[in-house]
Amino acid sequence: MPMTTPPLEDLRQEVNQALGAHIASLPAGRLVDAMGYALLGSGKRLRPLLCMAACIDSGGARETALSPACAAEMIHSYSLAHDDLPCMDDDDERRGSPSLHKAFDEATALLAGDALQTLAFRTLADCPGVSDEVRVRMLKELSDAGGAAGMAGGQMLDLLCDDVATRDLAHLKNTQAMKTGALFRAALRLGLVSANRDIHLLDAFASSFGLAFQAADDLRDCLGEREVLGKPPGSDLRHNKLTWVSLIGIEEAQAALAKLRLSCKDELRHADFEPVLLAQVTQLALGTDDLLGIS
Amino acid sequence: MPMTTPPLEDLRQEVNQALGAHIASLPAGRLVDAMGYALLGSGKRLRPLLCMAACIDSGGARETALSPACAAEMIHSYSLAHDDLPCMDDDDERRGSPSLHKAFDEATALLAGDALQTLAFRTLADCPGVSDEVRVRMLKELSDAGGAAGMAGGQMLDLLCDDVATRDLAHLKNTQAMKTGALFRAALRLGLVSANRDIHLLDAFASSFGLAFQAADDLRDCLGEREVLGKPPGSDLRHNKLTWVSLIGIEEAQAALAKLRLSCKDELRHADFEPVLLAQVTQLALGTDDLLGIS
Repeated sequence: MPMTTPPLEDLRQEVNQALGAHIASLPAGRLVDAMGYALLGSGKRLRPLLCMAACIDSGGARETALSPACAAEMIHSYSLAHDDLPCMDDDDERRGSPSLHKAFDEATALLAGDALQTLAFRTLADCPGVSDEVRVRMLKELSDAGGAAGMAGGQMLDLLCDDVATRDLAHLKNTQAMKTGALFRAALRLGLVSANRDIHLLDAFASSFGLAFQAADDLRDCLGEREVLGKPPGSDLRHNKLTWVSLIGIEEAQAALAKLRLSCKDELRHADFEPVLLAQVTQLALGTDDLLGIS
Repeated sequence: MPMTTPPLEDLRQEVNQALGAHIASLPAGRLVDAMGYALLGSGKRLRPLLCMAACIDSGGARETALSPACAAEMIHSYSLAHDDLPCMDDDDERRGSPSLHKAFDEATALLAGDALQTLAFRTLADCPGVSDEVRVRMLKELSDAGGAAGMAGGQMLDLLCDDVATRDLAHLKNTQAMKTGALFRAALRLGLVSANRDIHLLDAFASSFGLAFQAADDLRDCLGEREVLGKPPGSDLRHNKLTWVSLIGIEEAQAALAKLRLSCKDELRHADFEPVLLAQVTQLALGTDDLLGIS
């Protein structure tokens, strides 16, 4: 356990500064402007915070977790940029601003997403304070989480959910575990790798956290207001998406979320270190919120 | 110099088999079907061949170059899949078949391209027969070549060419060096890294090869027939692209290509090894062709 635990807000600012520096290191122009628009700004930075928290809580040095934290956020940002495109979810707003392809154009949004993915892996190659063996382990984790067996595969299942015969909870959980959960788990694992800890230490927590996050996200999309969401609510419904709400209804979804939150807390208690920051990030992601049936 | 030089066709088959195995290792489904459609098939495999040739010619073991060779082809394939999308070049055909988004749909083509990029970096992480230090060097080379300072940045410049005040040869060469040249150079460097050779040994050759390839490509798009091109000719003209032909006309473009081919040969002669395979790949890419003014 570290001697002093830094405030979450300090970590977020560190991440934001590092992300800005990565963008600033690229040749100026329209493409890099678009990458900055997608990557910088008002995101909660949950994935980088999970990565930094896992590293610091488990006794690692925060500097070593900063690069993989940024890489995880770059993967997340690229996926949002592509997800918002007309051929995918066709969302015109993101975090209260025009989505990337509305602020620029579709071709630029496509290329900026592509280049953000590339930048994520480039960032791992330069991760300071760790050995090449650690860098390669990070590369494996992040590419497994982002690819066909992870995030991209989950997005495909999500698009295909209209066609599947089994719109059931098992299918929903599998889709969400791939689409959202894999990158959360990778963020945690990257933090543990940075701290030279067993990479699987937080896998059970990651699994509950991912499902809880997605259940909360589904509830917010259904119940939230435009001002809070930063985009019009009801997007899932319009796209006939398979969600916790569409499958089991609002009240049961809230009950499932409450159980998953308890699982998160329980699994954190079983860590062999004091999960001070991880508990705070969990609170930030899944905290008190009337919409979620949590008070 | 290796004792025996394998025929180019053997190397191509090795690459094709390895690419097939990478696809087969992923969870079956629509996304991976689309990735296979984009990656496997009738490509010339110039980038993998350059990688394998650089490795073998310079004394390396071909097994070590196979993974980076595949990774370079995955990056190339993802870029073609995204390039063909309606918001980019809107090409319905590729190599005589429907392009990826016509064979599947736009969302699937987008995700399959994304996942092919991820798979490229994943493939480097598992490259057999080399140290983690070499894997990280490969990661740097390929991500630099693919990102905002390389291929993606070049594609952006290519899209913006209507707007630039200077439609001149310097701008054309810079755009093409980024869009096409960077990945050729990376393929050669990956081969050299696999052989534990100086990574810059073939940079001058790479530069001439990249420009020559693009000049030939521009000429073929202008003069070629549908059957040979595998897609309708005149795509550059329709998109008002800045090309060797649009800038200096057919005859001057042919003359420039002839000079660049001589530079390629000359630069290969200066290598400190016998460039047997590299000469063959160059011949394959830029060989006898009436269209190109070469007989």
